[in-house]
Amino acid sequence: MVAVGRVEDVLAGTVVRAARLMRDLDDQIPGALEELKALYPHTGGAFIVGVTGNPGSGKSTIVDCLIAQYREAGLRVGVVAIDPSSPYSGGAILGDRIRMQRHATDDSVFIRSLATRGHLGGLSRSTQDIITVMDAMGHDVIIVETVGVGQDEVDVVSTAHTSVVVVVPGLGDEIQAIKAGILEIADILVVNKADRDGADRTVADLSMMLDLRAKGAKTVRILKAVAIKEGGMVELVEAVDLHRRELDSETEGRRRGLERAETRLKDLVRTLALERALALLESGDGLSALVERIAEREIDPYSAAEQVLAELMGNP
Amino acid sequence: MVAVGRVEDVLAGTVVRAARLMRDLDDQIPGALEELKALYPHTGGAFIVGVTGNPGSGKSTIVDCLIAQYREAGLRVGVVAIDPSSPYSGGAILGDRIRMQRHATDDSVFIRSLATRGHLGGLSRSTQDIITVMDAMGHDVIIVETVGVGQDEVDVVSTAHTSVVVVVPGLGDEIQAIKAGILEIADILVVNKADRDGADRTVADLSMMLDLRAKGAKTVRILKAVAIKEGGMVELVEAVDLHRRELDSETEGRRRGLERAETRLKDLVRTLALERALALLESGDGLSALVERIAEREIDPYSAAEQVLAELMGNP
Repeated sequence: MVAVGRVEDVLAGTVVRAARLMRDLDDQIPGALEELKALYPHTGGAFIVGVTGNPGSGKSTIVDCLIAQYREAGLRVGVVAIDPSSPYSGGAILGDRIRMQRHATDDSVFIRSLATRGHLGGLSRSTQDIITVMDAMGHDVIIVETVGVGQDEVDVVSTAHTSVVVVVPGLGDEIQAIKAGILEIADILVVNKADRDGADRTVADLSMMLDLRAKGAKTVRILKAVAIKEGGMVELVEAVDLHRRELDSETEGRRRGLERAETRLKDLVRTLALERALALLESGDGLSALVERIAEREIDPYSAAEQVLAELMGNP
Repeated sequence: MVAVGRVEDVLAGTVVRAARLMRDLDDQIPGALEELKALYPHTGGAFIVGVTGNPGSGKSTIVDCLIAQYREAGLRVGVVAIDPSSPYSGGAILGDRIRMQRHATDDSVFIRSLATRGHLGGLSRSTQDIITVMDAMGHDVIIVETVGVGQDEVDVVSTAHTSVVVVVPGLGDEIQAIKAGILEIADILVVNKADRDGADRTVADLSMMLDLRAKGAKTVRILKAVAIKEGGMVELVEAVDLHRRELDSETEGRRRGLERAETRLKDLVRTLALERALALLESGDGLSALVERIAEREIDPYSAAEQVLAELMGNP
């Protein structure tokens, strides 16, 4: 079914139509992708801020404070909240994200939760699609909130102009290892819950680790915050603005744009190739027969995959 | 370069040769894949245990205790530790994993750390390749340790026969949302650091959430532990054994085998398709030219990806 005039409605910022388009994209309604293509030339205007950190670090509270400040400045704000919800049963559980709902009646704030489950093309692709729609709608700032440590964070970097990493004082030794990884991702490090014991120690640790980096490494700012009392939140917005101005004036902004484009292209090639291979398998011998042979060790998965690819590419 | 006789050496359990093969696989030395294919028919003997949980939950301590007990039982143990290390600078930082090194002089324990960065085929594929090698070497038990919440956990499920999820008492409200996702993944829930306040409350919360599930949901065991003092670790091994026996006697074991095979096939098709597409791009117009056009919004990434695919498949 073609959604008549939806591209124009989305460009005009109509939330209901945009939300429906996002759902159609998730459901892989073919026409939806064509609409996304039509929206793409109208994107690039939004500033994308990634906020990441461990569960319990207070990310959602920080995102909530950012929304409030950007709204006060008259900006339109989009939020993509990637939920640590069940990969199988669906239903994103909002938890303390409910706090954010005070913005729900504000037409200029568009919050979209994304379950981590069931994204055939990967979470990264779904996130990118939503960002594309929000960008085309005319949002000035888009905040992407992710949880966890690992590939998700890397995806945030390739998505965001500015990456904010939230840590809390004293979460044990293992956190040290994580911080090392985090340092390379973050543009801004927020030590939240800084009214707790060990906050200064955490700041000192992080500073030391930053100092140990190679010469010429990018500038990373460290801030202390008590987000629940809105402490440090004005400073955070200032730090984001400062980083944004640096991006504008440097080749870094262009480099990130290219990185983002490359990530998207690779994601999509991977997804499309798999989609077509699966379609091919279902139409022919069947996926389940091949899977069964792998499980029985009659064929190894590497040879099976090569076989599928050869068929996909017309047996060269 | 062909590594003469390496398949035989790996099958004989030679650690040095196996480690070298793993590195060659990571570096995508073509001959290495052929060796992996040759090893595949010799796999399926290992029991795979996934251990996952948030940073600071004490996963590594638990894995350490598991290794010790399996060694006492005379079993050969492989460990794949997926490190929350830097996605860019390389070098996995071991942190408190150093404790595990007491097993380093034990020939029957093979520990392999895996950085989360730079896996073209995805972390899941690299993990699977290592498991295949360890399995073929004759390890009885392979423990896969992952950090974070999200896609990693799902991958652990599709890899492991038994999934152990580690939580700690009172990590704030947001943890509630995560637990809901975790319940569907876990076969065994370990409330570690159970000498802390709130441990009983956490157990009660988890039990309640388990009770709320639909009828016919799988059995999930909850254990309390103080891993640092080895408390609850004998019970954990017993719970793993119990689950293992259930798998043997039920269709669940077969279902998981098929699920694992399907995941591997899809992962590999995706990877190979991307590899070939990238090779194609580099030989022709060039990847960078296309990426630049996307960044400049001269072409949208969806159309660009379709174009790459069409070329890959011989312009049907």
